[in-house]
This record gives sequence, C-alpha cells and structure tokens, in this order.
Amino acid sequence: MPVSLATSRRTRRSFYSARVEALGVSAYTVYNHMLLPVAFRSLEEDYRHLVNHVQLWDVGGERQVELRGTDAARLAQLMTPRDLGHAAIGQCLYAPLVDEGGFMVNDPVLLKLAEDRFWLSIADSDVALWARGLAWGLGLDVAVREPDVCPLAVQGPKAEEVMAAVFGEDVRAIRFFRFAWLEFRAHPLIVARSGWSRQGGFEIYADDPAVGLDLWDALWQAGQAFEIGPGCPNLIERIEGALLSYGNDILYGDNPLECGLDKFCHLERPVDPQDPRPAPRRPTLSARGRALAGAGGRAPDRRDPLGRLVAAARG
Amino acid sequence: MPVSLATSRRTRRSFYSARVEALGVSAYTVYNHMLLPVAFRSLEEDYRHLVNHVQLWDVGGERQVELRGTDAARLAQLMTPRDLGHAAIGQCLYAPLVDEGGFMVNDPVLLKLAEDRFWLSIADSDVALWARGLAWGLGLDVAVREPDVCPLAVQGPKAEEVMAAVFGEDVRAIRFFRFAWLEFRAHPLIVARSGWSRQGGFEIYADDPAVGLDLWDALWQAGQAFEIGPGCPNLIERIEGALLSYGNDILYGDNPLECGLDKFCHLERPVDPQDPRPAPRRPTLSARGRALAGAGGRAPDRRDPLGRLVAAARG
Repeated sequence: MPVSLATSRRTRRSFYSARVEALGVSAYTVYNHMLLPVAFRSLEEDYRHLVNHVQLWDVGGERQVELRGTDAARLAQLMTPRDLGHAAIGQCLYAPLVDEGGFMVNDPVLLKLAEDRFWLSIADSDVALWARGLAWGLGLDVAVREPDVCPLAVQGPKAEEVMAAVFGEDVRAIRFFRFAWLEFRAHPLIVARSGWSRQGGFEIYADDPAVGLDLWDALWQAGQAFEIGPGCPNLIERIEGALLSYGNDILYGDNPLECGLDKFCHLERPVDPQDPRPAPRRPTLSARGRALAGAGGRAPDRRDPLGRLVAAARG
Repeated sequence: MPVSLATSRRTRRSFYSARVEALGVSAYTVYNHMLLPVAFRSLEEDYRHLVNHVQLWDVGGERQVELRGTDAARLAQLMTPRDLGHAAIGQCLYAPLVDEGGFMVNDPVLLKLAEDRFWLSIADSDVALWARGLAWGLGLDVAVREPDVCPLAVQGPKAEEVMAAVFGEDVRAIRFFRFAWLEFRAHPLIVARSGWSRQGGFEIYADDPAVGLDLWDALWQAGQAFEIGPGCPNLIERIEGALLSYGNDILYGDNPLECGLDKFCHLERPVDPQDPRPAPRRPTLSARGRALAGAGGRAPDRRDPLGRLVAAARG
C-alpha cells in the first residue's frame, strides 16, 4: 500500500529536491532525517535505464560526518575494525563501524581528506552522535560536525562521458574508490569514482546549495546526448550487485563477521602503535553461527527454516 | 505536494501499524527509523476531535533508550543539564540532552524505573549511539539498549474514562508526569500520565507486540462510548500548547537556553558529588542573543527580520 509522506523541517530537503520533484519523483524515503528519492518510474524501468544509460541521483541523504583535529585519526580508527593505518589522502574506504559490543553502528565510506581530517559518508544512523560521545568520553582533541554537503551521484555506463563533458578529461584519471578536487565554475569540489550501484560512476560532494543546483543543471544538460534520466539507488540492481543496506540487510545487533565483512576486520591491530595513551577495550567478534548471504534463484521453502529473507526483488 | 513514502524493513513498523492503516491513516512521517502516523482526516478535523473527545495514538516511534547498571545514573546526569539528583522512582522528567559543546542532542522524557535503570523516551535522533559512545569512552558500567517498546497514547479530555474502563480505577491516582506499573490481562505495563498534547491523557509503554495489539483493541472497544477515534500528534494543538519538536523547532546547534529551557538547566551541579572519579568537562551555555518564542497572531512582516519562523498553523 503506498502511503503519503508528511514532510516538515525535520525531514530535511536536499540541494536538489526541487529538481527531482520537477522530474517526477514518485516516492521518497527518509534517510538521515532527509528526503531521499526512491522511485521515478517503476522499479523495473528505473533499473533498465540505469544499466543501459546514465542517471543523476540526489543522494543528499548520504550525510558527511567530519572528524577534524589532532585526534581525528585516532577516533576514526577506534570507530572501525578496518585498518586505516595505510590509508592515503584521496582514498575512499568502505568502513564498517562497530561499537564496544561488536555491533554494527553504520557502514560508511570513509574519505581521507588530510592526515587530520576525515569524512564518513554515512548510511542511515546518527554516527555524529556516537562520534561525539566517544570524543567527549575519551577527551579527544577532535571536532565532529555534519557539514552541509549534498552528494550528487552520476551512475551508469555512460557516467564518465557526462562527467568529462562537465569537469573535463581529468575525471577519467580518477581510479575506483579514489577522489580528487576538481573545479566546477571556479568552485573546488570533491569528485570520487564511487556510488551505490555496480554500473560505474561518480559522486560529487557539493558543499553549497547554489553550486549544487548549477552542477545538477550542467550535468543534466551535458547528459542529454547520453539519454540521461533521474534515478536513485535501485532495489533490483543493488540486490544483483550484493550492495548491503544498513537498516535493511544489516541491523544494529549484527556484527560485521555475520554480514560477510570479514575482510574489513583487523581488530588485533592496536588503534595507534605510536600513541602512549591507553586505548579503550576493543570488541571481540564471532559470527555466532549466523551469516548474511545471497540466496539467488527462488525463495526458500517456508518449511525449511534456513534463516530469514531480508531483501528481495523479482524480474 | 503530497509525496509517497517508500517503506522497507529500515522504516520499521510499530505494534499498531496494521490498526492505524485499517483506520485510514492518510500520512506517515519517519521518526527514529519508524513509521509514525501524522494525519487521519484533515489537520483541522483531527484537531477538533482531539480537543473534544479522546484519541488513540500509535507513538511507537517514541523509542526508549534504556540505561541500566551501576553507572546508569551517572551517565543520565552527564547527558542532561537538568538536576536528576532528587528524581524519584516512578517520575517522568522532561530532560533536554546537551553535548559537550552545549548543543541539543534530543529532548526526551526520562522515566526513572529504578536507582540503576532509566528509560529515555526520545525525540527523533539516535540517542542510544551517543550514550554508547559516552559509556565506552568513559569506561562506564552501564548497558545501553533500545528495548522493543511501542508506547500507545490515549489523549483527550475523555482519556481518563477510557483508561479506567480498561485498567480500573487505579489509573485515576496517577499524577501528571508520574507512572505506575498496572496490569493488563496479567501483563504488567508502565502507564504514565503524559503525552504530546495539552488535552490530558496517558502513555502506555507496551513491551510485547501481541499484548500491544490486544491493548489497542481493548481501548478501542472501551472508547466506543466516548467517541474515540484514531489520532496522532497534531500540528495545531502542539503549537497552541507550545510543545517543542526536536528537528522542527529545535535543531542540533541550538542550546537549551536559546530554546526557552532555562528552568531545566542546572549545569553548575556536579554530576555526582559522591563519585570520586573525575567528571568530564561540562558545557558552558549562553543564549548568544537568540530565543525561541511563540509568535501568536499574524505572521511577522517579511521586511522586519526579527528572526525565523520555524512552525506555523492557521485555523
């Protein structure tokens, strides 16, 4: 049953909300207290367009949590079991966040902007509050804030062509899960080769509402030659691509080993071998006999309780 | 423009969602990652019914954050500038939550269940994450969890009659912002005289889905003699009653003095005078020349920049 969404100041609008509404967004969800488009035409039509052409996605609800200061790296490393010791400036790292009990708090992409500055591009939970609690409790020298950044994603096989038309040939040199500062009308913006699809593409971290709108319009204009359309994260495509969704596939109460995220878990590593301060107790993880896995094919028989189905789509 | 809400496992359903849908809920919002009804008929009709009769509200989105353990009282006191030193078991206390910077994290009603057990009945932000960060950072002996409790509110001038028909005469003895454990079909439930309206009423903290549905049905049945109807927090009524809404009237970035919450601020008080451990640095608050206030009457002239209008309704 489709229901209406009552919006208010609390369900924040992104830089691009007016554009996606003009283009006929047919459903929103609320993500990090913000409107996130979920459908334009049908799920199937949106899917077919995405895998064949190129789409502009308003993913302003992917909020950034900035950690900045002397202890920013220490705090970031405390928040994730993934070893950040070798992370380079300009790198994006998928980083499950895990609390003292070993439970999943979020699963952002971490952007290393400087040795003392990180952005966590988060899924739907208030990571800034957790980071502030940790920083206060530990007396860390770090500022935690949510800058007003609305990422704009360009996704699909023709994304690079559209991006090159707007940002120039430099975008082609950006490797997967790397970012560069590129200028758009003299305004420097973080441009990453990333996004919540398996079709290839970019995310642009617009940090100004007017620049964001101009950028949307410029990409839309350049995309006309490539059958650009409005889009959004697509349920069919993300299940085919095994992209996990926090709150849907992963809940707080799951741990990363149970979610198939073993390769991002390096809990034996000290938070910072050079730091003489005692580190807080780290969690111990075990999968408790549970595992998140793709089912494929047909739905399991209800009489055969292998587990619980958390997400499904049919073609 | 009314838009559709796409629901998923991430936009959690409450114990009562099936009932409010059968009764024709016309719009939801998402509140603490949960569906919260916002309208049934028109805002005006819902308002008139509320102030004249009695309504059942699905406020399952008012999640509970439980603090339990030796250090629960210490953690609770760290989270709020309100002095909890004299709080009694069975008391509900409106408690702005303020972080190290003095900023509003949430404004729950705190229920003191025991000397070492508190529930924070929260507005829309992930307070559990903040509490967990603080507890981990400070090494506190406290368990922070979100029990699966869906409050059900009975609001309106006839609320006491309906409640007495279901829970017996004991409900009449519950004072404003106090709670008692009352039995419903041999299942003990927290029943508080509270709720997000100024019409009087109760909130019942159902902690079991089946019990919650039975309770809904029993109240609905008993309410037939009192013109009971489905309802929800009402924009007109809450503005008339000056009930603040976190995320709408109050944002993170505001401090409680700016929100007219001076009387809940006792920051000079030590966290626990008996506790020999050093307390973390507490925030210093000043109103920075800003104040949240009721405007009343007609909207201010746009040429007269007194401030910003954050919520309005017209009759």
